Amino acid sequence: MNYKAILQYDGTRYRGWQVQGNTDNTIQGKIETLLTRMAGEPVEVNGSGRTDAGVHAAGQVISFRCQTDRTPEDICAYMNQYLPEDICVLSVEEAAPRFHARLNAVRKTYVYRIWNAPVRPVFERKYMTWIEQPLDVDAMRRAAELLCGTHDYRAFCSLKKFKKSTVRTVEEVNIEHLGKEIRISYTGDGFLYHMVRILTGTLVEVGEGARKPEDMSTILMSMDRANAGKLMPPEGLTLECVEYEDNLKK
Amino acid sequence: MNYKAILQYDGTRYRGWQVQGNTDNTIQGKIETLLTRMAGEPVEVNGSGRTDAGVHAAGQVISFRCQTDRTPEDICAYMNQYLPEDICVLSVEEAAPRFHARLNAVRKTYVYRIWNAPVRPVFERKYMTWIEQPLDVDAMRRAAELLCGTHDYRAFCSLKKFKKSTVRTVEEVNIEHLGKEIRISYTGDGFLYHMVRILTGTLVEVGEGARKPEDMSTILMSMDRANAGKLMPPEGLTLECVEYEDNLKK
Repeated sequence: MNYKAILQYDGTRYRGWQVQGNTDNTIQGKIETLLTRMAGEPVEVNGSGRTDAGVHAAGQVISFRCQTDRTPEDICAYMNQYLPEDICVLSVEEAAPRFHARLNAVRKTYVYRIWNAPVRPVFERKYMTWIEQPLDVDAMRRAAELLCGTHDYRAFCSLKKFKKSTVRTVEEVNIEHLGKEIRISYTGDGFLYHMVRILTGTLVEVGEGARKPEDMSTILMSMDRANAGKLMPPEGLTLECVEYEDNLKK
Repeated sequence: MNYKAILQYDGTRYRGWQVQGNTDNTIQGKIETLLTRMAGEPVEVNGSGRTDAGVHAAGQVISFRCQTDRTPEDICAYMNQYLPEDICVLSVEEAAPRFHARLNAVRKTYVYRIWNAPVRPVFERKYMTWIEQPLDVDAMRRAAELLCGTHDYRAFCSLKKFKKSTVRTVEEVNIEHLGKEIRISYTGDGFLYHMVRILTGTLVEVGEGARKPEDMSTILMSMDRANAGKLMPPEGLTLECVEYEDNLKK
């Protein structure tokens, strides 16, 4: 049977989503170890995408195949019973035989949270990046509009060599100012390596007055990483949700 | 000079507010050590009240006397520079000579947060108590009304011997249902030892159907701890704010 599950995790103490060699301090590693123990046979887990070390997920989607007599609800309960307190499973359901969490994802939303206040955050310190200087949110919104659309985003990617297309469609960049929090949501069909954190760093530099909103188009067209802003730290970033074509939901 | 300051802290890794013997793992201990170092002479800090081990504060108020050439803003910046990431100072101001954070407090608000959902909280796990079974919030609200007023609250106190009055005025118990969170705010002129956590435990038992709202009056009148509900764990509790008479604010 093929399954789809939705996970949440606090990425603070992990080396990211993807299994890396022998070090098992990854979310994928934790999940695969657990499902392998449950099924009594090796289970491979596919995530909708990798999240970097320190990045969180409120709605990471995974798919995996395994043979078990348990119902999806039982699998979910089993996983939550043994997972550490910083990872949980929101739901498990049977999926169409060809469903694959990464290959079939059509839309993802990431949220970058900034604590913009003179005093650092205490309760949200693991989920927000602190910026003391007041940011010009209106200027950031004007810049964000220019970053949307279908473009080659390689200027906003940390990789230096590209084997695959670096063209992506960013449908929306929404910036909310909620008290001391500035919350930037990015929705698109996919994001390059470090892309959300570099887009955010560039928007922050606009908010600081160091760049103008209209510079965004020039940066995009330059296709040169050196022209974009800084890479923001991972703790402010959360993978919010992943969407699939309706006919693959089940 | 006499000062008033407002603090926030994540109480997770502390043994509570109050200095206890040699063990310095208390919030008061951290603050006194820091101010003593800053002033070059012993500084004694008075909090508006003790918070227990594991309890948080979003607006703990303190007062302290010290001689320094620094402005209140400089004291605030100095403290935030050296405090650990789970404690911060929101503000420091000069206070009236007779201002005392505990003796002059006229109103306090505590918030108890419950995560009421089938799956445990990941991001809010250190600030909420998880209750899986759906609670009847309407019944809890009816019970909460009966707990307000001016009463002898010793049935809701963990102490067994009382030297001082156990009469308090609870002005309001407000229960909000915000998605998966049930947020109970208590406002009153003061609270006995463990009182907010026992009131919450009793309300939770009403929400579970194990007690009726109208039992609250009987419990209050019995003045017997054995008749009230369980003591809730500390991590769900936050001291939200402390109010003073206007003429003592400065």
